[in-house]
Amino acid sequence: MADINSKLEIGVTTGPIRGSRKIHVESARFPGLTVAMREISLEPSSGEPPVRVYDTSGPYTDTNAMIDIAAGLPKLRRDWIMARGDVEEYDAREVKPEDNGLKGPDRSAGVPAFPNVVKRPLRAKAGGNVSQMHYARQGIITPEMEYVAIRENLGRKQAKEALIRDGQDWGASIPDYVTPEFVRDEVARGRAIIPSNINHPESEPMAIGRNFLVKINANIGNSAVASDVASEVDKMVWSIRWGADTVMDLSTGRNIHDTREWILRNSPVPIGTVPIYQALEKVGGVAEDLTWEIFRDTLIEQAEQGVDYFTIHAGVRLPYIPLAAKRMTGIVSRGGSIMAKWCLAHHKESFLYERFDEITEIMKAYDVAYSLGDGLRPGSIYDANDEAQFAELYTLGELTKRAWAQDVQVMIEGPGHVPMHKIRENMTKQLEACGEAPFYTLGPLVTDIAPGYDHITSGIGAAQIGWYGTAMLCYVTPKEHLGLPDRDDVKVGVVTYKLAAHAADLAKGHPAAQVRDDALSKARFEFRWRDQFNLSLDPDTAEQYHDQTLPAEGAKSAHFCSMCGPKFCSMKISQEVRDFAAKQNQPIETFVAADEAEAEAGMKAMSAKYDEMGRELYIGAGGREHD
Amino acid sequence: MADINSKLEIGVTTGPIRGSRKIHVESARFPGLTVAMREISLEPSSGEPPVRVYDTSGPYTDTNAMIDIAAGLPKLRRDWIMARGDVEEYDAREVKPEDNGLKGPDRSAGVPAFPNVVKRPLRAKAGGNVSQMHYARQGIITPEMEYVAIRENLGRKQAKEALIRDGQDWGASIPDYVTPEFVRDEVARGRAIIPSNINHPESEPMAIGRNFLVKINANIGNSAVASDVASEVDKMVWSIRWGADTVMDLSTGRNIHDTREWILRNSPVPIGTVPIYQALEKVGGVAEDLTWEIFRDTLIEQAEQGVDYFTIHAGVRLPYIPLAAKRMTGIVSRGGSIMAKWCLAHHKESFLYERFDEITEIMKAYDVAYSLGDGLRPGSIYDANDEAQFAELYTLGELTKRAWAQDVQVMIEGPGHVPMHKIRENMTKQLEACGEAPFYTLGPLVTDIAPGYDHITSGIGAAQIGWYGTAMLCYVTPKEHLGLPDRDDVKVGVVTYKLAAHAADLAKGHPAAQVRDDALSKARFEFRWRDQFNLSLDPDTAEQYHDQTLPAEGAKSAHFCSMCGPKFCSMKISQEVRDFAAKQNQPIETFVAADEAEAEAGMKAMSAKYDEMGRELYIGAGGREHD
Repeated sequence: MADINSKLEIGVTTGPIRGSRKIHVESARFPGLTVAMREISLEPSSGEPPVRVYDTSGPYTDTNAMIDIAAGLPKLRRDWIMARGDVEEYDAREVKPEDNGLKGPDRSAGVPAFPNVVKRPLRAKAGGNVSQMHYARQGIITPEMEYVAIRENLGRKQAKEALIRDGQDWGASIPDYVTPEFVRDEVARGRAIIPSNINHPESEPMAIGRNFLVKINANIGNSAVASDVASEVDKMVWSIRWGADTVMDLSTGRNIHDTREWILRNSPVPIGTVPIYQALEKVGGVAEDLTWEIFRDTLIEQAEQGVDYFTIHAGVRLPYIPLAAKRMTGIVSRGGSIMAKWCLAHHKESFLYERFDEITEIMKAYDVAYSLGDGLRPGSIYDANDEAQFAELYTLGELTKRAWAQDVQVMIEGPGHVPMHKIRENMTKQLEACGEAPFYTLGPLVTDIAPGYDHITSGIGAAQIGWYGTAMLCYVTPKEHLGLPDRDDVKVGVVTYKLAAHAADLAKGHPAAQVRDDALSKARFEFRWRDQFNLSLDPDTAEQYHDQTLPAEGAKSAHFCSMCGPKFCSMKISQEVRDFAAKQNQPIETFVAADEAEAEAGMKAMSAKYDEMGRELYIGAGGREHD
Repeated sequence: MADINSKLEIGVTTGPIRGSRKIHVESARFPGLTVAMREISLEPSSGEPPVRVYDTSGPYTDTNAMIDIAAGLPKLRRDWIMARGDVEEYDAREVKPEDNGLKGPDRSAGVPAFPNVVKRPLRAKAGGNVSQMHYARQGIITPEMEYVAIRENLGRKQAKEALIRDGQDWGASIPDYVTPEFVRDEVARGRAIIPSNINHPESEPMAIGRNFLVKINANIGNSAVASDVASEVDKMVWSIRWGADTVMDLSTGRNIHDTREWILRNSPVPIGTVPIYQALEKVGGVAEDLTWEIFRDTLIEQAEQGVDYFTIHAGVRLPYIPLAAKRMTGIVSRGGSIMAKWCLAHHKESFLYERFDEITEIMKAYDVAYSLGDGLRPGSIYDANDEAQFAELYTLGELTKRAWAQDVQVMIEGPGHVPMHKIRENMTKQLEACGEAPFYTLGPLVTDIAPGYDHITSGIGAAQIGWYGTAMLCYVTPKEHLGLPDRDDVKVGVVTYKLAAHAADLAKGHPAAQVRDDALSKARFEFRWRDQFNLSLDPDTAEQYHDQTLPAEGAKSAHFCSMCGPKFCSMKISQEVRDFAAKQNQPIETFVAADEAEAEAGMKAMSAKYDEMGRELYIGAGGREHD
């Protein structure tokens, strides 16, 4: 994993993921449009085709790409956007010191501004709407929709004959094959979103919806106590390398504007933010000093930069606040508590709720998608599925319809901390309240007692709610509740959520989801160690763990492993059972003693036959499990 | 975590778990019988009682205990066993070189024999039965049952007023309060077992059953490529420190007998084995050379040493083998494949199946419990819930009834690799086939694509099947499929399974399971960092993660965390919302704008009132989650 940016102050990890290469699949409908995927080649001995996997890593894993963090990524979607002829360039809002949390001109604590800033961003022509939902509802298939269709279909062609549709989808409508028409229809009815701000043309289109592959989000961002733009950009690139489908920049404190610019210009995945965080910094952290004007100004600032979705806690209404006051852990959502404080201080209804349609006007001019925040989500098992939580959820449903009335894309954020037996209710109520708008949950954590392992307590809940229909899972790292995730935490969080999302796809019976499991299991059974490593979500760790016990290079081609050693192997014996069967004139069933008596006859012969042959069989050793 | 055994060759971790102390609860029924528990004291500021938690760590965490690995643990149950007057001492079977996998007298590769070996073990008097099930069926309440009752009740007394029975138990019968009579009845009907070989008096009684707390097992053991008795004893002590309820010694290769002796004499938890492993070593690893006589001799050898449960793959019948030959990953159970090979070689039905009643005769003379092995469990998602697996399961059901006919305790082993939507069927069929005998599963892993993270892929399945009714979850470590777990892997595996088992208890609505979650969440909300660490499953890691971001000692009492920094905090604001409400003459609900117009009136006043007061409130910072 070389760092070809060592010349720059900001270094990121580049180069292909072990054992795979970047490929580009061409679109028939849009000449020149190609979709990036990752292809894992298997050992020739396997006689199997390469396995294609969904790839979120962008140009960073492309050996042909030239990465220059100071210049930003190529603007993949720029031409598509311009070709629609419904946008105009205009002079960007002037960046003010307070945008970076700096009152006055002091930039001592500042980070270098991104050198390649767009001075003239895009927005819809007056009164226009450039949202993917708006196009979809007019029956238009955009290049973004085509890109998504090709991307989601990966693996299905090769799996088509043996399409495995064995699963329980809880009422989803997953097609055997994804057409751009299907993508359009799902976006049109609000069942899926394609976050794609026209000012973030660097992003590779992806869909978030119950009938597509389950996606995951990784959170990064500076905080007031730790601020370093280089490490945040590095974490963004690192998180998408391992599979983050979107990234949220949750920066607080200083340098919010500049940090976000560096991230956006270098991100091939949609970026989400919580604008109220920055608005709060602009008023020196005093929630009650927030105003609609400051918030509105922040929305435009971030929309011009290219943020693809905004978390907006418009469901935290004044009447719900007392419900939260009764809780064990009150309000754990930062955005939710900011608004709760504002509402109490002024004793007014939330301006996010009251100005919702005005906010929507802004969203549609840039195609920023809503991520309606669950400001009243439970912060403990005790508070799960309570009155406060569901009161807000139904308000989010009401707001969803108001956003859809203006053709603006919406997803709904969900909990949080929920014991397993209460997870399903969250999904059912969300589908009912929000008209199947994509659900986007944080875990949920299924117990409170394992700080340090909350990527796991939440991965358990995430796999389940993903199976029930949640479209995107927001990762939780081992540092949750304890500290700020570092690079390693980000990777562990991403891989944990990737496996949870895949487990959900398998359980939903997503076509071709099982292709990768089957390829890996075959490799395991046939002792193709390298294939087993390369097909895994984290080939580096898999190989490293193997080598800790058997470092010798030869062990990677050896027909045994460290669990049983070279003397005995269950996998090998299974193979012998097969070979033995194959070597018989008649199939093995016929001489198996279904009926003791009848069997007696053939026995001695069979036994002798095995004796002369079976003894020669090499006794290898392999993957023992627990007994 | 000092090592007071540094003088000995075998060092283990001793000393109390951070922030807690060992306590002993006395039995009213049996004078002198005391049950060990762990008590976590909270900061005085909390005004809350100490929290008692289930403790598997034995004397090793008791500051008053003197640990001497060469002498072994005190024989807690010895007097109880002798008092029943139904056992006799006799001369132990002579240890043979092949017991340690050593043909001939060569002990070069050997480990030192345990110095304090019992030369005259116990067994039931001729024709007798010393199983807990046998006593239970005669209406006898043994000290073992009383111990279990007190142990399982932990926390319920203090939670009695606010007993939380909110859960979905899938037809379990979990009582509000566990009486020894309930334990007896569950054991009598076979719904729970208390593994307690009369030759393992060092063990602290525990129950495995659907209506008790979900238990976890940790696997340890030498292999042919890595053999070190000291590290295996250390791993055993380490695994119970973090919560392993039972430990399986899966040693293969050499020194099996001696390694097991060291482990048994120092283990306060039941020890399980797979006798066929040792039998195989006795015939030089050639499965077809196995005989009933060698196997029987091995059972007696291990029963005399004190093994509490035997995994026996008696369900791998000759007619089922062809079914496995058709699979993607064949037979992944080591014991299962050994028997499959034997059956094919001799073309005979398995001697484990044919001699089952004779095996049971031996089990009842020592009270060894059956763990009927699932030799045909699926080794991949592709093979899940197939014909081979369920054919064997129903045979295990038949064998369960045969064991019960002789009053011998039984649990049933389960998979393996199973996608989420097929997990429930495993539980339902097991309950139906095996008459509610306790289910004991390995995970299951819900996807095959994450080697290196299989403690998580399996933890997801384990939490679910535990919720559905599985009584014990066999852990999987990060090294599964790749290598042998080291000390760190063992800890990660145990903690992962502990949280999965607890999540299952919560979802089943187990009384008082939530007491610990509530205590931890309250501590979190009130910024009692030390209480939060101490109440967690792994206080060391929790504190270490916190300190990575905020090392200063003061930060542990600070009312903020590194996520939001000192300037802003959602938890703190929730507290302000409460304080604000409390400071009002009328409850907060009354002045919340349910109706805009009516609200108008009070608003200005309230707002002013907050202004003069709210501004003074300290603005702290705390546990932000994702927005």
